[in-house]
Amino acid sequence: MIKVIPSIDSVKGFRVAGVRAGIKKREGALDFALIRSRVDCTAAGVFTTNKVKAAPVLLNMERLNQNPEKMRAVVINSGNANACTGWKGMENARKTSDMIAEQLEIDTEQVLVMSTGVIGQHLPMDKVTNGVELACNALDKNWEATATAIMTTDTHPKWASVNVMTAHGEYTIAGIAKGAGMIAPNMATMLSVVVTDAKLSLSQTQKSLKTAAQQSYNRIVVDGDTSTNDMVVLMANGMSTAVIDDGYDMETFQNALNALTKYLAQQVVRDGEGVTKFITLDIKNAESPAIAEKIGHTIASSVLTKTAFYGNDANWGRMIAAAGRAGVAFDPDKTSLWVSPGEELFEDDKGLLIFENGMPTDYQESQASEVMAEPSIYITLDCGMGDGQATIWTCDISHEYVSINADYRT
Amino acid sequence: MIKVIPSIDSVKGFRVAGVRAGIKKREGALDFALIRSRVDCTAAGVFTTNKVKAAPVLLNMERLNQNPEKMRAVVINSGNANACTGWKGMENARKTSDMIAEQLEIDTEQVLVMSTGVIGQHLPMDKVTNGVELACNALDKNWEATATAIMTTDTHPKWASVNVMTAHGEYTIAGIAKGAGMIAPNMATMLSVVVTDAKLSLSQTQKSLKTAAQQSYNRIVVDGDTSTNDMVVLMANGMSTAVIDDGYDMETFQNALNALTKYLAQQVVRDGEGVTKFITLDIKNAESPAIAEKIGHTIASSVLTKTAFYGNDANWGRMIAAAGRAGVAFDPDKTSLWVSPGEELFEDDKGLLIFENGMPTDYQESQASEVMAEPSIYITLDCGMGDGQATIWTCDISHEYVSINADYRT
Repeated sequence: MIKVIPSIDSVKGFRVAGVRAGIKKREGALDFALIRSRVDCTAAGVFTTNKVKAAPVLLNMERLNQNPEKMRAVVINSGNANACTGWKGMENARKTSDMIAEQLEIDTEQVLVMSTGVIGQHLPMDKVTNGVELACNALDKNWEATATAIMTTDTHPKWASVNVMTAHGEYTIAGIAKGAGMIAPNMATMLSVVVTDAKLSLSQTQKSLKTAAQQSYNRIVVDGDTSTNDMVVLMANGMSTAVIDDGYDMETFQNALNALTKYLAQQVVRDGEGVTKFITLDIKNAESPAIAEKIGHTIASSVLTKTAFYGNDANWGRMIAAAGRAGVAFDPDKTSLWVSPGEELFEDDKGLLIFENGMPTDYQESQASEVMAEPSIYITLDCGMGDGQATIWTCDISHEYVSINADYRT
Repeated sequence: MIKVIPSIDSVKGFRVAGVRAGIKKREGALDFALIRSRVDCTAAGVFTTNKVKAAPVLLNMERLNQNPEKMRAVVINSGNANACTGWKGMENARKTSDMIAEQLEIDTEQVLVMSTGVIGQHLPMDKVTNGVELACNALDKNWEATATAIMTTDTHPKWASVNVMTAHGEYTIAGIAKGAGMIAPNMATMLSVVVTDAKLSLSQTQKSLKTAAQQSYNRIVVDGDTSTNDMVVLMANGMSTAVIDDGYDMETFQNALNALTKYLAQQVVRDGEGVTKFITLDIKNAESPAIAEKIGHTIASSVLTKTAFYGNDANWGRMIAAAGRAGVAFDPDKTSLWVSPGEELFEDDKGLLIFENGMPTDYQESQASEVMAEPSIYITLDCGMGDGQATIWTCDISHEYVSINADYRT
């Protein structure tokens, strides 16, 4: 039984810190985080697919390519994305890692760098210098401060852990994440660091992260925009007593990692900018799983659908119309749609059938609105064309979303 | 000199009407329009690319395929889209045209049908019957009422005409349009009927409409969603004295049609749901015109970019990031971006350079905000990769947009 705990008790050999460097304007806001392993880690990353990649993304891609078995630390600042900052941005990312390396007495190539915040402003290096100093001195077990220091428009920090006990020993996987806006599918859609004291080979690390990201971070949509910065990193330091072979143990690890990343990804949606509703889109019987995913993503990115969610409106017409423009095989006359309250189906009861084989049913609008007024809604779309399935988690777009994003830089 | 006039004086042989059938809830709202030519027209259509096509779209595609040289009338209702309504929707669309044909003493195959409004409810045929009766009796030259009767969330009717005098005679092109929401690129993105008393061959009609739509209706973005219903129809009845040969005359006709459709398309953006700003995106020097268009559409559809426009925020970072996820050739390090007030450049002065070759310039944020606070903004994005160009017109997303779309059906 894998259980994700919304706290982090202990993951051996890792120390963390979240401090205030002064990059964020708001008085007292934490904005500088550090995660350090006592020993070398195998590490892997999943990166944004945006052609515009921030300096730290490019730096980490290079380092995880050249030095993936000796990683020691991740340094993260919020308040400034260090994106669209050219050669100077790259220099600043390298300088940040140089300073961390010097303080921690490791090589600069053993440090990963993440940044999140406003695009296109140079990192204030005096404040970064300050942050490095403070963070290196504060290393401890304060995961809450660490998760808080990477937030941008998030309203609360996101961190969680899974403790796994097997016949071959015990280990912990722990992670932090930030999100809130610019969250879209098919790329590392947020900032997340996952660490474990399990001992993994490099290929185990890489493969398990890719698999986990595909069913978690790549299945959430807040606004359909894609960040220049976002990435997920997994670091395994092997300090637990557990042995992970490629068979049953690895399957258990994968399940635990999947559960943790799914939890963190869902947290990002729940805390999406101005979100009032958590929507699960269960796309069934599409021609293939990829087509199901594409249909789900298109519905989840439709501004009209999202504003209808906000208005408690069972406007399946907008959902069907969004599916119709997804650019994949779709036939409304074979399609049916149900709405149900909650985040999961109870005994496979799909709830209220409102659209069946191309036409609305004779459902009562008041019944549908009652479901749509719930804080969590489960929508089942049966495409009637094959057996492809995908689940996407998304949210509404509210007045508050517009306020947050109109005023972000002011 | 081609001049679009925001009124319609006379286009020979066409009579129009806009009446109240009672389909819209709001007391007194016009919701039923009819356009009739005294003689047969050559006709062409451009249709939504959505896989979910409303009944009237399917019906018109069929009729314009089978009977494109004998078209006589277009009947349009607002308040109900007759989309996602299955076989019964198709039957209702046919019945509507049957009734019009009977009243006007023409064949039902000579009638085109358009519907716009809420998706997934059956047309109230008693009210349609009422509308047919009233509209056929009201046929006259009231273009304003006609343009008003096709509105949904539009705040004002949209109609215009162009009068062309050539050595070979005089003719008029006149058109109405509706839009406001669910406006996205690469399909007939709104409802529009354009009529002319010029005499065109079928291939001239088809080719000129396609060309005109590509540089007008397909270049506007309100919210990035694609309607199930939208289409543009051109009908030419040849009742003017003008002769249009395939050379210079046709070029003049094309220019006039382009000007008219561009005017109508821009009207749709200006009156977009909750719009406070009119944005011109001039994408230059992309690898190809198609790539320029794709980059422009992606920026114009980005919710984050649109909310930044609303907030008077020169957030070029979001624009560059949107371009980066367009899925086409793009390199931020070769890219520059200018903002300027207004709808056109004055003497090629691109205005304030805020991003140059991958990095922000040292522009003053206050200067940029001043430009962004204007009701019209001209943005030039130079991709530095070739000579492909495209202009896209778009708008912001405001609180009002969310209100309109959260409450649309309630």
